[in-house]
Amino acid sequence: MPDFTVGDKLRVTLFGQSHGPAVGCVIEGYPAGRSVDWERVRAFMARRAPGQNAWSTRRKETDGFETLSGLSKDGFTCGAPLTFLIRNTDAHSGDYPDLTRTPRPGHADFAADFKYGGAWDCRGGGHFSARLTAALCLAGALCVQELERYGIRVAAHIARVGDILDDVPDPVHPHLPFYADGAFPVINADQGEKMKREIDAARQAGDSVDGAVRCFVLGLKPGQVGGPYFGGLEGKLAQALFGIPAVKGVQFGDTQPRGSLNNDPYRLENGLPTAATNHCGGILGGISNGMPVYFTVSLKPTPSISQPQQTVDLETMEETTLLLRGRHDPCVVPRAVPVTEAVTALALTDLIV
Amino acid sequence: MPDFTVGDKLRVTLFGQSHGPAVGCVIEGYPAGRSVDWERVRAFMARRAPGQNAWSTRRKETDGFETLSGLSKDGFTCGAPLTFLIRNTDAHSGDYPDLTRTPRPGHADFAADFKYGGAWDCRGGGHFSARLTAALCLAGALCVQELERYGIRVAAHIARVGDILDDVPDPVHPHLPFYADGAFPVINADQGEKMKREIDAARQAGDSVDGAVRCFVLGLKPGQVGGPYFGGLEGKLAQALFGIPAVKGVQFGDTQPRGSLNNDPYRLENGLPTAATNHCGGILGGISNGMPVYFTVSLKPTPSISQPQQTVDLETMEETTLLLRGRHDPCVVPRAVPVTEAVTALALTDLIV
Amino acid sequence: MPDFTVGDKLRVTLFGQSHGPAVGCVIEGYPAGRSVDWERVRAFMARRAPGQNAWSTRRKETDGFETLSGLSKDGFTCGAPLTFLIRNTDAHSGDYPDLTRTPRPGHADFAADFKYGGAWDCRGGGHFSARLTAALCLAGALCVQELERYGIRVAAHIARVGDILDDVPDPVHPHLPFYADGAFPVINADQGEKMKREIDAARQAGDSVDGAVRCFVLGLKPGQVGGPYFGGLEGKLAQALFGIPAVKGVQFGDTQPRGSLNNDPYRLENGLPTAATNHCGGILGGISNGMPVYFTVSLKPTPSISQPQQTVDLETMEETTLLLRGRHDPCVVPRAVPVTEAVTALALTDLIV
Amino acid sequence: MPDFTVGDKLRVTLFGQSHGPAVGCVIEGYPAGRSVDWERVRAFMARRAPGQNAWSTRRKETDGFETLSGLSKDGFTCGAPLTFLIRNTDAHSGDYPDLTRTPRPGHADFAADFKYGGAWDCRGGGHFSARLTAALCLAGALCVQELERYGIRVAAHIARVGDILDDVPDPVHPHLPFYADGAFPVINADQGEKMKREIDAARQAGDSVDGAVRCFVLGLKPGQVGGPYFGGLEGKLAQALFGIPAVKGVQFGDTQPRGSLNNDPYRLENGLPTAATNHCGGILGGISNGMPVYFTVSLKPTPSISQPQQTVDLETMEETTLLLRGRHDPCVVPRAVPVTEAVTALALTDLIV
Repeated sequence: MPDFTVGDKLRVTLFGQSHGPAVGCVIEGYPAGRSVDWERVRAFMARRAPGQNAWSTRRKETDGFETLSGLSKDGFTCGAPLTFLIRNTDAHSGDYPDLTRTPRPGHADFAADFKYGGAWDCRGGGHFSARLTAALCLAGALCVQELERYGIRVAAHIARVGDILDDVPDPVHPHLPFYADGAFPVINADQGEKMKREIDAARQAGDSVDGAVRCFVLGLKPGQVGGPYFGGLEGKLAQALFGIPAVKGVQFGDTQPRGSLNNDPYRLENGLPTAATNHCGGILGGISNGMPVYFTVSLKPTPSISQPQQTVDLETMEETTLLLRGRHDPCVVPRAVPVTEAVTALALTDLIV
Repeated sequence: MPDFTVGDKLRVTLFGQSHGPAVGCVIEGYPAGRSVDWERVRAFMARRAPGQNAWSTRRKETDGFETLSGLSKDGFTCGAPLTFLIRNTDAHSGDYPDLTRTPRPGHADFAADFKYGGAWDCRGGGHFSARLTAALCLAGALCVQELERYGIRVAAHIARVGDILDDVPDPVHPHLPFYADGAFPVINADQGEKMKREIDAARQAGDSVDGAVRCFVLGLKPGQVGGPYFGGLEGKLAQALFGIPAVKGVQFGDTQPRGSLNNDPYRLENGLPTAATNHCGGILGGISNGMPVYFTVSLKPTPSISQPQQTVDLETMEETTLLLRGRHDPCVVPRAVPVTEAVTALALTDLIV
Repeated sequence: MPDFTVGDKLRVTLFGQSHGPAVGCVIEGYPAGRSVDWERVRAFMARRAPGQNAWSTRRKETDGFETLSGLSKDGFTCGAPLTFLIRNTDAHSGDYPDLTRTPRPGHADFAADFKYGGAWDCRGGGHFSARLTAALCLAGALCVQELERYGIRVAAHIARVGDILDDVPDPVHPHLPFYADGAFPVINADQGEKMKREIDAARQAGDSVDGAVRCFVLGLKPGQVGGPYFGGLEGKLAQALFGIPAVKGVQFGDTQPRGSLNNDPYRLENGLPTAATNHCGGILGGISNGMPVYFTVSLKPTPSISQPQQTVDLETMEETTLLLRGRHDPCVVPRAVPVTEAVTALALTDLIV
Repeated sequence: MPDFTVGDKLRVTLFGQSHGPAVGCVIEGYPAGRSVDWERVRAFMARRAPGQNAWSTRRKETDGFETLSGLSKDGFTCGAPLTFLIRNTDAHSGDYPDLTRTPRPGHADFAADFKYGGAWDCRGGGHFSARLTAALCLAGALCVQELERYGIRVAAHIARVGDILDDVPDPVHPHLPFYADGAFPVINADQGEKMKREIDAARQAGDSVDGAVRCFVLGLKPGQVGGPYFGGLEGKLAQALFGIPAVKGVQFGDTQPRGSLNNDPYRLENGLPTAATNHCGGILGGISNGMPVYFTVSLKPTPSISQPQQTVDLETMEETTLLLRGRHDPCVVPRAVPVTEAVTALALTDLIV
C-alpha cells in the first residue's frame, strides 16, 4: 500500500507538499447521489486550520478548496472520484535552513535523506508536513456525514496536555460535546485553561509539549464491523491513526489489571442484553460489540522548537548547533482532535460502505 | 483484507479452529532457494507451546507440523507457497458450555454471535482461539531466519505482569538475551520470580492478570523501511500486532513530555552521524532512522477465569451466572513474547523481501 | 498480490505442487451459516478430474479432499477460513527428466529457472502444474452454490478444438445445458464427436491441439457488478481467467465491425427496457447491463508432447533433443471447461459477497 | 480495488469527468531523484490529444497540465505523490441530450443509471469518458522514462482497422518504429492509407469502425517479471489493458493449433540459450522468458454514431429514436495506440520499481 493512500472500498489518496503549489486528496468509493453539507465541511476544516488560535502556528491558511471532480451538475456526488485542491498561500520557504544538510532532531529529515537519496523537498517538511492533514480533514468531514446516515457519530477531545488531564467520559453512556470552530476541545473547561497555560509556557520557553486525544465512536452495532485476527477493528483503526503525524501510541478501552475486573459482565438493560461496563472499549475479538468504541491516541511534542539543538552537518561531518525559526505549534494536540476524528471516520466508512 | 491474512509481498494466511481438525498457515512470497534450520523453527515454536510450564494452560500440544508444500525434493524452499499443517490432538470440547447461548464476559462470543448469525464454532473459541498463534509462530520463525540474512534481529521480553516491571534495556545500545524454550523471558530474573508469583496468585484466585511485552528490532538501516503518513512503520507494525489476541495497545519509543527532552539530538559516533538518545523508538516520519526500533504491546488479562461471572442467557433472555471450566492461561504475557516476535518478523519481512 | 491468491473479499489461496504431498486451498470471506451440498461439490470436481475419460491424461487422482477448517460441528460454514487438503496419490516422478537442465519448449521451465535461481521443484511442473486446478474447482464449486443464492448461474462449453467449432448459443436468451461428470461439454454432439477424433488424432501423432472455452453468466442485474476504468468487469474476470494454465486470450462478447451493427439497441420486452442484441457480452462501461455476460477463453495446445523437441542443455550449453514421457492431456480444453466456470464463479462471488 | 486506481507499488489514481473542471492523476511510488524529460512527456501526450488529425474527434484540448506536487524546487521527483491537473477547456455540454433518460446503445449509460441510482454526470460520458486517458498518458509517459532506465521499451502500432491489417513484426527480432506526434502509427504506410480511407468512410456514413492494437515490450529478462497462476504477467497486463475504454479482448502471442508448432524450441544464439520462435508472446508459465512480449488488444467501434438509433425513454417507458450530435472519433484505434503503450508502461513499472 502506498504511503499516501488509506482504505480499500472508501479509499483516500493524499497529495501535496508543505511548500509546493497545493495539497489535496482524491476520494474513491464515496457513494453516489449524496448531497453534501459544505458548510459543515468547512466548519470541520476550520477546527484544524492554523493561525486561528493563540495555541497554534501563526501560519495562516484559509484552507479554501476547489472541487475538481466528483459532483454532478446538480451538486450531488456522482460516482466519479471526489478530488479537492487546497492551494498553499502562506508558505515562507525562507524560514527553513537546508535541513537535508543539518537534520532536525525529532523530525523525519535524517531518515528521509536516506530513503530518498537526498532528493526530497525538505521545505516545511515537504510531504511529511502536517499541512496535508487539511486534506485529510476535508475527506474526513465527508465521511462524518456518510456515517451519520448509518447513525454513527465520531467525537474526540483532548485527553491530556503534558500532565494535565481532561475528565474521562462515562464509557457506557458517554455524553460528548461537539466542538465548534475556535473552541478548545475539552470537557472540563477549567482543565482546558490549565492546558492552554501549559502550552503557552512551552511556547515561551521555546519548547513544545506532548499530549493525547481520546476518541469515541457511537452507534456501531454488535457484530457490525471488525473480525478476528488481522481483520480486527483495533488493527484497522490503528493503521490509520498512526498515519497522523506525531502519533506514537494507540490504546483501546481502559484495561483493568485482573480478568475479574476487566471482563465486562452482560446484563439486561431495557430487556436487551448489554454490557454493564466497557473496559474493552467496545471491541471484543476484534469486533464491535455494540458498546461505544473508544481509544486514546498519544502524540509526541512538536519536534520543531526554537531552542538551540545539537545536530550533525552531513556535508562537513561535524557536530553543530541548529537554530530553527519558522512558525510552529507548541502543541499539536488541539488540532489533532479533528484530525483524529477525520481519520477515524475514514477508517469506519471504509468498513461500512 | 480478509481476517486471516497479513502482509502483501510476504503474505501469511492462517487457518483452523481450536477444536477443529487442525490449524496451519500458507506463506506466499518467501524467497526460493533458502535452506531452513528446522530445529530452530521447532525451538521457536516450543517457546509458545502450551502445557510446558507452570504458568500456562494445561492443554498439551506438541505443535508438530507437516509440510504440505513449498519445499523442493532437496529440502530447499522452491517458490511454491509454504503450507504447514498442525493437527489438534488435545482438544476437550466437553469442557465448553454453549457459549453462543451464554456469552462469556470479555470474550468474542457476544460480538461473534451477531457477526456470524450464530453459525460460528464456539468450541474453544473457534477461529478466535489463540491456538492459531502456533501457526503464526511457525511462519514467524521462518521470517526470523530470513531477516537474519539482512542482519536484522527481533527480540522481545516481558515488560510487565500486573504492576511488576522488568528492567528496561538501553534503547541506544540494547543488550538483549535470546530466550531458550522453557525460560521465562525477562531480563531481571528477580523480577521474573515476582511475576511468576503474581501469575500463580491470579490462578489460585480463579483470576487472571494483564501485562505487556516490549520488543526490539536491531539492524534496520536509516531509510530502509517505512514512509510518511499511511506508509509509516508504526502503522504497519501496529496493524499486525493488534492481530495478536488480547493486545489492546501499542506504543512506540518512550515519548518525553517536552520537545527539548524528546528530540533525539544527532552526534558523531565513530565518525558517523547517529542519535544520542532514542525516545522516538527508531522511527521518525514513519521511517526507520537507524536506531533500534522498539515498542511496547499491552495485553489484557485472559478473559477466561474460573470465578463465577454474570451474563445473559440469550435464549431465555434472563440474567444468569456463568461458570467456566477448561484449561486457561492465567496470564497470556509469557507466551505472547514469541508471538510478538513472530508477528514483528512477519511484518518486517514483508517490507524487505 | 501474491501468485496463488485471487480475490479481495472472497479470497482463495492455492497451495501445493504436482509431486509434493498435496494440493489444496484456503477460502476466506465465504459467508457463515451456509449449508454446502458436498455431493454437488464432488460432482463438479469430477468433471475436471484426470484419468476419467479417453481424452484426458491417464494420471488417476480421485481428488478426494479433507476439510481442515471452516465448518461448525453441525456442518455449516462457520466464518473460519475454509481449508481443503487434496493428497497427491498417483505422482510418478520417475517420468520426468531433469527439466531445470533441459527446459521443455512451451513450458515454464526456462523462465522458472531464472525466477527461482534453479531452486524450484520441476517434477510434474511443480507449482505451475494444472494439478492445482483441482483445488480451484473445489473452491469454485462452493462459489457456484453461493452465486445460486443470488440467482446467478455460470455455465461453459467447449467453443473450439483445433478448427472444429461448437454451436454458438443465442447471446440474448441462451439455453445452456449443464454437464454431468463424464459428459463431453459441447452443445452440438456431432461436433463433439469430431472434436474427440481431433484430440485422438493429436494423441496418436504424439502431438496436442489447441482450442477455446465459451462461458456464460446468467442472472446478473443491470449495474450490479463492475465499474468504469480499472474497476471494469472485463478486467476483473480477465485477471482471474489468465490465472488458468494455458490461457492466452480472453474476448468479451462478439464485437461487430461497425458501430451501427455493434451497438445493442434498447427496446421494451414485457414492458421492461432491455437490449435487443448482445454484442457487448453483457458488459458496458465495465458494468453488467443485465444481459447475459459471455466471453471466450482461448487455450494453447498442451506443451507436453511426445514428439522429439529441440532444446538446450543448460549445463553443457549444447543444443540437444528432448524426449518427454509421462501422461499428458493431448488437449486441455475439455477439462478447462469446469476450471473456467470455477474461476468465473470465484471472481463473481468476490464482487457480490 | 477502486475503479480509478491501478498498480500496487507504482499506483496511479485517475480523477475527473468529461465536462467537469478537470481531469488528472496522482502517481504514488515513482522513484525519487529522477529528472523528467517534460518535452518527451508532452510529445507522448500529443499523440493521444484530440482535434489534431483528420481521423479523430474535433474536440480540441491542448492537454496542458499543471504539476501540483511531487517535484523538489530543483525539479527532481521528490518522493511525494506526483499530481497533475489537466483543465477541461473545450467541453460543449449543450451537445448532449439527457442520456440518463434515453440511454445510448453501446454506451455505459443504461448500466451506469442502475449503478449510481441516476446520480451520475452523463455529460460527455462523465467519468466513463476517454477524456481521462489524457491523464493516463501523462502517467504512462513518466513510466516509459523509468522503464528506459532498466533497458525496457514499449511500442505499439495499429494492428487492424475494420478488416485492413498492418504488417506483423517479426516476434523474435522486431524492428519497431517510434511514432512522432501527428504520425499515423502503422508499419506499412500503404495499409495506413487504406485504414484512413476506411475511417473516413465510416465517418461519412455516420458510423464508426472497430480495430486492434498490437503492442511489444522489449528488454524484459528471463524470469524478471510475472509468476505462476494469478501472478501471471498475462493477467496483470490484461487487468490494466481492459481498463482502457472500448477494449473487449486481449490476446498474447500467436498461438498455433498444434503443440509441435506452438512450442518455441530452444537453441543457442551467440552462445546463449534462446527460443527460435516466439508464439508464446514472451511469456511462459506467466513469467517473462526473455523474448519480446507482445499482445493484441481488440477495440469495439466507437458507440457514439450519428445514425439514428433505437432506445427506450426510461421516463415514459416508450421506445424512441435517439439522434446524437457531438464530436466523436469514428475510430478510437489510432489514439488507443499511445494509451495502450501508457497502460502497459504503468503495469510494468509497477512490477519493476
